[in-house]
This record gives sequence, C-alpha cells and structure tokens, in this order.
Amino acid sequence: MITHPNYDANDPWALRERGLDLGTLAQSESVFALANGHIGLRGNLDEGEPVGLPGTYLNGFHETRPLPYAESAYGNPEAGETVVNVTDAKLMRLHVDDELFDVRYGELLSHERVLDFRAGMLRREVHWRSPAGAEVRIRSKRLVSFSQRGVAAIEYEVEPVGRSARLVIQSELVTNEDGHTGAPSGPGGAEHGGDPRGAAALAQPLEGLESFADDMRVSLVHRTKRSGALVCVSADHEVEGPAGTETTVEHGDDAARVIVAADVPEGSTLRVLKFISYAWSGHRALPSVRAQARGGLAEAAHTGWDGLCEEQRAYLDAFWEGADVEVDGDGELQQAIRFSLFHVLQAGARAERRAIAAKGLTGSGYDGHAFWDSESFVLPVLTYTSPDAAADALRWRFETLGLARDRAQQLGWAGAAFPWRTITGQECSGYWPAGSAAVHIGADIADAVLRYQRASGDPVFAREVGLPLLVETARLWISLGHYDRKNRFRLAGVTGPDEYSALSDDNTYTNLMARRNLLGAAEAVDAHPESAAGLGVGHDESTQWRRAADAMHVPYDGILDVHMQAEGFTHHAVWDFEATPAENYPLLLHYPYFDLYRKQVVKQADLVLALYTCGDRFTAEQKARAFAYYEPLTVRDSSLSACVQAIVAAETGHLELAYDYLGEAAYMDLHDLEHNTRDGLHIASLAGSWLALVAGFGGFRDHDGVLSFAPRVPPGVDRLAFRIGVSTGRVLVEVDAENAHYTLQSGEALEIHHHAELVHLTADSGRVSRPIPPLPHRERPRQPSGREPLRRSAPRA
Amino acid sequence: MITHPNYDANDPWALRERGLDLGTLAQSESVFALANGHIGLRGNLDEGEPVGLPGTYLNGFHETRPLPYAESAYGNPEAGETVVNVTDAKLMRLHVDDELFDVRYGELLSHERVLDFRAGMLRREVHWRSPAGAEVRIRSKRLVSFSQRGVAAIEYEVEPVGRSARLVIQSELVTNEDGHTGAPSGPGGAEHGGDPRGAAALAQPLEGLESFADDMRVSLVHRTKRSGALVCVSADHEVEGPAGTETTVEHGDDAARVIVAADVPEGSTLRVLKFISYAWSGHRALPSVRAQARGGLAEAAHTGWDGLCEEQRAYLDAFWEGADVEVDGDGELQQAIRFSLFHVLQAGARAERRAIAAKGLTGSGYDGHAFWDSESFVLPVLTYTSPDAAADALRWRFETLGLARDRAQQLGWAGAAFPWRTITGQECSGYWPAGSAAVHIGADIADAVLRYQRASGDPVFAREVGLPLLVETARLWISLGHYDRKNRFRLAGVTGPDEYSALSDDNTYTNLMARRNLLGAAEAVDAHPESAAGLGVGHDESTQWRRAADAMHVPYDGILDVHMQAEGFTHHAVWDFEATPAENYPLLLHYPYFDLYRKQVVKQADLVLALYTCGDRFTAEQKARAFAYYEPLTVRDSSLSACVQAIVAAETGHLELAYDYLGEAAYMDLHDLEHNTRDGLHIASLAGSWLALVAGFGGFRDHDGVLSFAPRVPPGVDRLAFRIGVSTGRVLVEVDAENAHYTLQSGEALEIHHHAELVHLTADSGRVSRPIPPLPHRERPRQPSGREPLRRSAPRA
Repeated sequence: MITHPNYDANDPWALRERGLDLGTLAQSESVFALANGHIGLRGNLDEGEPVGLPGTYLNGFHETRPLPYAESAYGNPEAGETVVNVTDAKLMRLHVDDELFDVRYGELLSHERVLDFRAGMLRREVHWRSPAGAEVRIRSKRLVSFSQRGVAAIEYEVEPVGRSARLVIQSELVTNEDGHTGAPSGPGGAEHGGDPRGAAALAQPLEGLESFADDMRVSLVHRTKRSGALVCVSADHEVEGPAGTETTVEHGDDAARVIVAADVPEGSTLRVLKFISYAWSGHRALPSVRAQARGGLAEAAHTGWDGLCEEQRAYLDAFWEGADVEVDGDGELQQAIRFSLFHVLQAGARAERRAIAAKGLTGSGYDGHAFWDSESFVLPVLTYTSPDAAADALRWRFETLGLARDRAQQLGWAGAAFPWRTITGQECSGYWPAGSAAVHIGADIADAVLRYQRASGDPVFAREVGLPLLVETARLWISLGHYDRKNRFRLAGVTGPDEYSALSDDNTYTNLMARRNLLGAAEAVDAHPESAAGLGVGHDESTQWRRAADAMHVPYDGILDVHMQAEGFTHHAVWDFEATPAENYPLLLHYPYFDLYRKQVVKQADLVLALYTCGDRFTAEQKARAFAYYEPLTVRDSSLSACVQAIVAAETGHLELAYDYLGEAAYMDLHDLEHNTRDGLHIASLAGSWLALVAGFGGFRDHDGVLSFAPRVPPGVDRLAFRIGVSTGRVLVEVDAENAHYTLQSGEALEIHHHAELVHLTADSGRVSRPIPPLPHRERPRQPSGREPLRRSAPRA
Repeated sequence: MITHPNYDANDPWALRERGLDLGTLAQSESVFALANGHIGLRGNLDEGEPVGLPGTYLNGFHETRPLPYAESAYGNPEAGETVVNVTDAKLMRLHVDDELFDVRYGELLSHERVLDFRAGMLRREVHWRSPAGAEVRIRSKRLVSFSQRGVAAIEYEVEPVGRSARLVIQSELVTNEDGHTGAPSGPGGAEHGGDPRGAAALAQPLEGLESFADDMRVSLVHRTKRSGALVCVSADHEVEGPAGTETTVEHGDDAARVIVAADVPEGSTLRVLKFISYAWSGHRALPSVRAQARGGLAEAAHTGWDGLCEEQRAYLDAFWEGADVEVDGDGELQQAIRFSLFHVLQAGARAERRAIAAKGLTGSGYDGHAFWDSESFVLPVLTYTSPDAAADALRWRFETLGLARDRAQQLGWAGAAFPWRTITGQECSGYWPAGSAAVHIGADIADAVLRYQRASGDPVFAREVGLPLLVETARLWISLGHYDRKNRFRLAGVTGPDEYSALSDDNTYTNLMARRNLLGAAEAVDAHPESAAGLGVGHDESTQWRRAADAMHVPYDGILDVHMQAEGFTHHAVWDFEATPAENYPLLLHYPYFDLYRKQVVKQADLVLALYTCGDRFTAEQKARAFAYYEPLTVRDSSLSACVQAIVAAETGHLELAYDYLGEAAYMDLHDLEHNTRDGLHIASLAGSWLALVAGFGGFRDHDGVLSFAPRVPPGVDRLAFRIGVSTGRVLVEVDAENAHYTLQSGEALEIHHHAELVHLTADSGRVSRPIPPLPHRERPRQPSGREPLRRSAPRA
C-alpha cells in the first residue's frame, strides 16, 4: 500500500492534494486524469515536466502490433491492438523572466491540485519563486467536456508577485512524446516484467501528415504507421494580458505552438484560454477528420470558457442527483465513493459505441484493452445511475458481433465468441488459457443485456440490440457444451474468473451464467418471435436452450458439503500458504501458472462471485458455507476481488469483514494498493466500491425485475444513502443501524423487496421505513496468512 | 503419403534410389543422411545444388535465441536453443570442359544413390552428358566414421566417356549457406506455419574467426554470434590424376577450397579423396578446438580411405551381429527395419554424453531438440542392441541434473525437473501446457535408467549415474503430488503423452510411470545406502516414496468399465469425427488446442502407451477393453503413436491391425507419411518399428529383469528373428506361425519366459522350441473415420 500523504481525505466533493510528491507523480497523474469516455487526459502537469507517464488517449484509437509466440498454434491471434498516446494538447509552458518554470528548480512555495467532482474540473494553484528570485502565482483549470465530447479546455493564468515579470506562455501541441511504454501485462492483477518488444513497436507511433497554424489556431494531423488511423487535434486560444502582449504561432511535423509574451506588472495577470478539439477515425479520409476537429473547436470557442464550465456543472448535477451515495460517519469513505463514481462516469459517459477499457482513458495499462470488467463491474453501476452510457456500451458489443461470429467460426463453434481483451472487438489475447478460454465473457455480456433491459424496459433496444446478443451468445453455449451419460449439460475445459485456475471442467460461475444466458435468450425469442425468426431462431432452438439450461451441471462436493469452483477443484492440494512469504504476492510474479493452476488457491472471487451474481441459485446456508470455504483460499491478487468479497461477506453476515473489503476496493487507486495505479486507474474496482456499498451493505439485487434490498450498515457508518434508477422510477434508499427508509423520488409507483418483504412505493408514500432484522452471528472467516484485508472496522469503544 | 517412386524395396541391406526426383529431393536428403551421433551430414548432392535443405550438424552445437511471448509469465524460458547448419565440408563441385556439372542441365543418363547399411556408406553413381555434349561418369562415396567420431571422408572420381575432357574439381568448405530455416514447430507431429523470427535469428549464424590453407589442407574457424560456441573444420585431400594435374588452394572468411584441374583422357580417372574433421566447443578456447580438428584430420589421413572403410565395416558387422532383425516373407519390411536400425544407430552411436535429438543429426526439425523420444523410444532399442550408446545417453541426462534441479527450484519444487525440449539441458519449450507440464519426462528417464540397469547389471553406473537420476526424479513426484481425502496419491494438472489433452488431473500414464520411478528409486537407495546418504536420502524419504507409489491413484470409469486417460477424460464430449474432413488432419493445424483439449480425441497413444510400458499393472481383459475404447478416439497425428498401437494391438490379439501399424511406423520416412521428412527423420518412429516387431510380434517385455516373450507372427510374415542382448547373454528369438525358437548366442545361462512359461537357456541348450498358444478371436477395433491405418495385411488367398 502506498498512501499518498498529500491527499486531503476530508473534502466530500473533491480530492485535494497539498504539496507535490514527485515520487508518486505517475500515480497522481492517473488519479487526477480527466476524461469523458471519448477523450482522456492524464493529470500531467501543465508544463509537461516532470512527468510520470505522459498520456492523452482517444477511445478506440490504437496501433496494431504482431503478437509473438515461441510456438505457433492454430487460432492464436496474430495481431494485438495497443492504445496510443496521441498528440499532447494540454501543454502550457511558462517562462518567467529568462527562466523556464519547473517545479524541480527554484522554490515551490505552495502547490495544490483539486479534482472537483461536481465542477468536473482539475484546478491547480502554484506559488513559485524562480532560482533568480522572481515570484509568480499560477492558476490553471482544465476540463474535458461531458457536453462536447471531443473537446477539452484550459484556463491558464499567471500573476507576478512582489514585482513585475516578463512572462512567456507557450501553448503547445506535441506528438510522439517519449515515455510511453505499451508493455503487455496480464489483466486484473499486478503488472509483470513486460516484453520490451511491446514497447519498441510503439516508440514514435505517429507519422505527421499535416500541420497548420493561423492567428491563434494550430492544428496537427497524424496517422498510425500500421493501423493507418487518422487523428487531428486543433486548438484555439484567447489571450488577456496587459498592453503590449504579443502572440506568435509556429508549427512543424510533430509540434505546433502559440507563444504569448508580455511584460506583466505586479497585481496584473496574463491569462490564456485554450480550447482543444480532437477528431479521429480508422476509416474516414483526412478532410473529414480535419473538418470534425475544426467543427468541434469552433463550437467550443463559441460556447466559451464560462459556457463550457456551466454545461459541465449541469451535466454533473444531473448525474449526482441520480447517482450519489452518502456515507455518514466515514468521511474518507464518503470521498472515496464519490471519487469512484466520478471516474466511472469519466470512463463511460460518452464512450458511445466504443469500449470502456479496464483503465478507462486514464493510462496505457493492459494496452488500453477492455475486458469483462466492463459488463460485470462497470455496467451494473451505470445501468442504475447513467443508463444511456450502459446502453451505448452494449451497443458497442453489438457492433462487434460480426467479429465475434468470425472468431467463433475460426474456433470451430456456432454463435459468437467475444474477445477476452480488445479495443476494436478483435481478440488480442496472446495467452489463450487465460484469454479465449475465459468464455464466460459471453455470459457476462448477456447478463449485462438482461440487466439493462429489466431496468430500462426499452423494447427497441431489446429487439435490435439485446436479442441478437442473447441469441448468438446462447448458440455458443450449445456448441461448447455436451450432455453426459446422466443427461447433465456440461462445459468442459474452460477458464472461469479465477486466473489461478484454467481449463477446468464445469466452472460453476460459467455454468450458472451460461444457464442465465440460455434462459434469457429463450425468453427474448418468445418476446420477439419475428425478429428471432430473422436470426434463424425457431421454437426448436429455443427449446434446446431451455433444455440445456435446465440440465446445467453444477459441481458439488458432497463430502465437504460445499460447491466446487469447478469439477474436481476441492480434490486438489491446498496451496501452502504458510510457506508463502508476504513478499511473494502477487503469486503470479513468483510462481508458475503450472503450479497455481493445479492447487486450491484463488486469485479472485470466482465461486464467490457466482454466490453474488447467481445468488438465486444458492440457499443462504450454501452461501455461508461456500464463503467460509473459499475465503481461506482467496489471495486477492486481482483488483476485481475485494468488492465481490465485500458483497458476499455482507450478505453472509460478516459486516466488519465486508467493510474491510470495501475499503480495499475504494482505496485501490487512492492508496495504490496494487502498485500499478501509475498505468491507469482500476475502473472496475472503483465501480466495485459502489457495488460493495449498494449490493453489499444495501443488499441490492435485481434477479427478476423486482428491486430487492436487504440493507445493513457496518459498525463504522451511521447512515448510508444511495439511489437506484430504473425506467419506472428512482428510489432513494437510506439505511441506519435500526431502519431502512425508502423514498420514490421519481415515477408513479414501484414495488421493492425489503429483506424479502414486499413494499409498495408510490409518488405519495413519502419516506417508507422498515426495521432491519437482526443479524445471525457467524465467525469471521480467516484469509490466507498475510492476505487479510486491512482492518477498517476497528470495534467501536 | 508420398511414396518415393525411385526407391528399390528389394535390397535387404541397402536403400537404392534409381533416378533422381527433384520434387522429393529434401526428403531424400534426410533419408540418405549419414551420421554417427556426433556429426551428421544430410544427403545433399556432392555439388551442393540443387538442394532441398543443406545441412551439416554437430551434436550440441547450437545458437541461442530469445523466446518471444505475447504475454509474459513467471517461469517461461527466456531463451531457446536452435541447431546450426555449420560449415559444409561435403561440397565437391565439378567443371566438365567449360560447364558446371548440374543435374538440372544437360542430360542425366543415369543417377543412382545407395545407402549401404553394412558398409555404412552413401554411394552415388552418375552418368551425365553436358549441354555441350561432354559425357562423364561420376562415382562418389561418402562416410561419416563410427570409429573416428569427428571424421567424415569422401571419395570422388570422375571419368570422361567417349572422349577426353578438361575436368576441374573444387573441393570446398562453405559457411552460412542459405536455405536453413529454424522455424519453431511442435514436437511429435506435423510442422505448423512457423514464426519467421525463428528463422531470422538464424540467418548467417556464424562469424568467421580464422581461415587457413596450405598445400591441400584447408581450415575454417567460426563462432556463433550469441552463444559464442566455436567450430573448426579442417579438410585434407589426396589427388590421383593424369600427368599435369594441378592443384591450388584458396581461402576466405566463409569459404575455402582446393581446386584440382586436369586434362583427363577417355578411360582415365580423376580421383580426389577428402578427409574432413570437425571440432567444436562452447567452452574451450580457439587453439584447443583448432588442435582437436587438426588432430582428428591427421588421424583420418593416416588411417586412409581404405582403413576408414574397413573400420566402418567392422563396426557395423559387430552391431548387426547383436541387433539384426530378420523378417522373412516381407522383403519391403525387411529393408525398412534395417533402414530403421541403421538410422537409430547413426543417431545414437557416438552421441557420447550429448543428447539424441528427435531428428538425430539428419535435419533441423524441432530446432534440433531432444524430447522424451530419446528415453521412451530410442533407448529401449539401444539398451538391447548397443548398450554403451544407451548408457552414454543417460550419462548426458545425468550431466544436466544441475540444470534440472535449478529448473525444479525455479518452478517451486524439489528434485529435478527435466526439460521437455532441449539441446543442452535448458528448458526450451515456449508453450508450457505442452512443455514443462509434461512432467512424465522425469519418469521416462527413470524408466530408461531402470531398464538399462536391469540389462547391463552395471553397479558403477547404477551407483554413480542411476541413483542420482532416480532420487531426484522421485523427489519431484513427492513435491508435485498430494494425498487426497481417501489417502490416494494424486498428480493434478499435468500433461500426459497425448498432446490433444493438457493440464489434466491424474494422467494414468504419468501416475503409473511415477509409481515405477518412486519404487525404483527406493530400491536403488536400498542397494546403495551410502551413496544415497550422500544425496541426503535416508530411510524416511524412501519410505515416503514407497507409500506414495502404493497409494498412487489410477482413474477408472466404473460405468464404462475402462481406464481413463486422466481423471474425467471419459466424461468429455467425443470429438465429432464424422464432421471432420480428411484434409483437416493433423487436427492441430485446423482446430485450436482449446477445443482439442476439452474433448475425447487422442493425438497419440497415451493410456494405450501405459498398457505397454506399465503392462504389469493391467489385466489382459483390461488391456483389451481399453484398447478397444481408445482406438476409435486416436487419430495418430503424432509419429510416436503407430508403433505403440502396433505393440498393444499385437498383445490384445489384433495381429493384422498390428501389422498395419507396424507398416506406418516403419515407412514414416521412406513414405514421408507426415509430410515433414524433409526436416529430418523421425528417429523415434524408426526405433518404434523395432519395438513394434520385437515388443509387438515378439511380445518382448522386461518388467522385472526376466526377459519375457509372447511371440506371434502376423499373416504376412513367415519367420521373424531378432536378438536381445543383456549382460548375461544374448538370445536369438526366431518365430514362425507355429513355434518360437530360442537360442543363447553368448553367455552361460539365461532364464526367459515364453508366453508365461519359464524356459532355461544355457550355452549348451541349442535351439529351444516352444509352441505358440492359439489366439483368442477379438473383433478388429475401428478407428476414427478416415484415420484407419493403410492395410498392409491383406488377407492371404
């Protein structure tokens, strides 16, 4: 754990950093990243240096590279996709008298950065004395617009202190910055020692096609060398300064700049507004891309700085109204959950039929790929807080259905095989036992479709997007599975969520999720028979799906009386945790997959994830026994685990343990728990902190369309409040130690469950309160030695 | 199948090719390769062109190259080793008048090549008319000496026909020839489309350090660029020609030559003798390597051409006396089995503490790596026919024990983990599920040790070589396995012989072979308690081994009443053979491992191999049922399968089927059945043809030190005779349709089993005959559609 000493945990609506710790600069660049799902700017300092990892990312914009194999094999993807750090437009370099402003030189009298969750803005205030003694205050504000998706804007102000100063501000566009490495690494866990070839392929990835400067406008157009994608960035400026302020422009292949020079008296200010517009395409021609960037720029300048700030505030006010989570009694957690929701929104808000990557647009980790993280962790949040973003993420999957069909065909199967990791929809996984073999991705997508459909009630989406996704994923299961001699439907040789197991028979999570997928597809066919016929689905096929779902095998250890993660799992040797020193975690950096796969050791919730996502298929007693069995085997080497363990711990009555896990999920990046926040934020874990609160302590489930709650607050929290929005209304849930209170904030009427009791909410029913039933006592499960979560829940005095 | 139309199948002691088929040139270069286990020359034409794949290989001489991974992981080998085509010393180029001799131009009046299994020599006779009408007869003889291991020699004679001719013979050394590709490919099966980087790393692999020419001696010294190994080749010449014959020498970095020019009258001959000596080392300095080559050359020239030929003949006479197999009634098979034995000898004779590669020294296939092929297929032949070669091969493993211990430690285990594929002992497998996970290699080595010890009775070997190998392999099993709740010892997540399955629990072959390893190690410790103590083995440890062996789990399907290849195997879906078109074999080129692993489809004998190697652990009835069950699942996409299927088919009474499989094993390379003989011979399959005859139709087993025979000849064979040599004597076994006859050819007394009847043989007992019991009728098992073996056993009229 790296706690960041400069973060102030007391502000409920902002993350404030006082001072500047260059040792954790890269981490803070991820934390202070701004994005809208379409474009993303890392929180690099305005002046470009010092820098941890420079980063500007455009959703879907990537370079391809060959995937190397020591031994080739049929079906291995030949090409990978890697996110590209595009032209950096956020650079504002400052000269004070004859010295370049650099926090490493001179004297940094004060430095503060604030990420404002309501303003949607990164503010910075610097007080600096140059080595020669000139003093300035610098104030910058940066936003990536939620309302104008290709647009970012910067306000940059400098004020001499004590005496006048000669100031030069250079507002730059710079392409092919050094420092970007795209070394491949595994998903969901700590980074491993990368392959230098991965990085080599991406040095200088862009070739310049066009540069332009006129008045205070500059523009650069580049193309990726292999994938041939075009990117155009344009910037315009407004300058306010004392009389005599001069501007000039320059441009070259990989750089363009506007230079503002002024003699500024003490008390006066030199202010530069920079409007930035990005456009890109893998298909369209240069004039079209250029025109799109120019159009976006014109609109942004027309809106103006104040207008952009107002739009931003309005967008976020609307978001928080439906999404906010209140945690009274734990201010640090309150801040962390809003930080999480803000970044989840930034990852998905305007992705608009492009992927939501595991790192969002905050870093180049995992090559910028999207995984199941999106459907299984991010969309459950967005579905109830920002449903349009959830719908668009699923539309993106729908648009890649052709590629997924091709992939299934290549592998010899029917239906669609969605990629384990991708930017465009092409499978980019170079290690198939933890890639293509993780076929649960298909069921995860289907599950997200079904959830969105229940919440939205959108018949057009259901028919045009949901149905084809459900049908093609269902077909894959029929093609993958077989009936055994006992007429059980089985899925052999697949990899479940736990990446310390692979190629197992009948992974319980996968089988139960496939069951849901098959039933959901059959119901969708019943609901849309004509559209289904258009996809070639008749009654026979959907009957086949129902039969397979009914016959789905779920492996159970009758002696231990516990569900098996997969067939035979509980017969394996238990990992020798006592002999595993703390420094050998994450295990994948110190032990071969060979040994991990063959033993009972769990990287991340797998059977325990099934207890949550398919909770309707387990009794309460089974859940309690399974959680108690798998806890001592689960090492949480993946950032996707703590939030799930929090949910199931809460459901099985371990509220303090749940609170501890919630802390891990919520502070994954603020405390850099996996030591790789520098490469980008763990968006799924951030989403998971919402899940831990809402599904964990709120006990929220949505298995059958009725919103169910079984709330209980942990000892450290006085009151928990959250909102769940569906098409028929939005309910505010407030929970304290004794009671839960339900308020219908919009809509006419809604039925919910409170601890299995049906409660009718109407527009007039106001705040309906229900008592919280007592909790059965269960002994706190133990974890592998040295892998206990940090105790957040110190027993109260 | 590519039958070679030019091979004459009628010569029992030689392979004769009439004419020259350029379309199968590369295949014939493998077939006509000469080697002695130390150096190997492909059967390239003397004049160097046309050429399929130029090749000269030195055992152990290799280049290293980085092994690339799309996703890195702990324990993946970082470097691979690849055999290098070294300086070509067999080149003899001929000018006739003013034209270069090239079979593609002018008129090839006759062309014959003969590989003589008793002379140990490749002879060639050519009658050629140049485009300008000059006619010559060319006779060349080439040998790689068994008696002088670094030495090869060539006799090259040219005689003008019809009129005199101006002849120039250029005897060359040439380094860094084009045409060598080291593309990686999987073991035991057909080659796949390789990674071009594998080849790129090996273009021009040698850098010149020294070249030299004096009188008629030339010499070149080179070094590999990465691994830094030195190779020196020296050649000396003797020339006989008409008066006026002149010689000159030239030398440069990558070439040296002796040029012989003469005006030769009709009826006269120009004759050049070339003595070649190779020396190489990865450790020693240049002067030492140079001196070794020079010394070998001097000895060869001193011995002279006739002397080398005599030594060669004497060596082979001794070999055939103990190794010959006679097959009366099937001349083609007679030739093929001697061809096989000759090449097995060439692969192993003088390997002398270096590896016996899968391709021997006949081609660059599989990067020149050694696999389990050596211990499991080649050594069972050499142990009883050329025991010193078997001992040396095991001494090589012993000398790599340090590397294997290091590898085990890296993987987190005790004992020794031998590499799946290697040249030096370093693991070079870049795909661990079919590499490091195939831990049965350790038991295969232990089995070969135990077999050699039983046969040789050599106590020094047993103590100094056998004991450490047995102890360290046994330790691996204890570290890999665990006791389950029923106190069964289990080995989870390993890969057995069948490469269409991987990472299974309790592979029956592996478990039973591990059991033998553990018991053998415990017995070795009892036999050598002091040496064992020196290895840290006490009574407690060997007791632990015995306990694990006794508790070893063997998975059995009680419903089907058949042994499982691995736990759960028979619960998997059966591969859809009916839907698999013939052109989709080998399956690995058309289907992903993902799908192959999860279904019942067997690349090569696995459970059926266990029926043979661990036949003492199955009843006759179990064997019959298991063979009948696995035959319809086995596609024989590996060259290691047919011979094993032949053995078990014979044992279970399917003599005609066994005969068919024997044909496949014996003609693997002569008929190019796997379409990759161009890359080198399948040494294990060649050895397997001996096994199919001796263990199959001879019913030879050696499970407990008593040589057991259960002979039965198939319908196509009148008489089968073979020899088995052990330290106490050599027995000649002759079998006809009614009787078996046993003769002790050397030694005082030997007990054998004939169909379970104990028979005492003595020096005086002469030819002891026993009747062959009748065969129970069993229905011929079927194979997957389209994968039936070619029928060799047409029912006789």
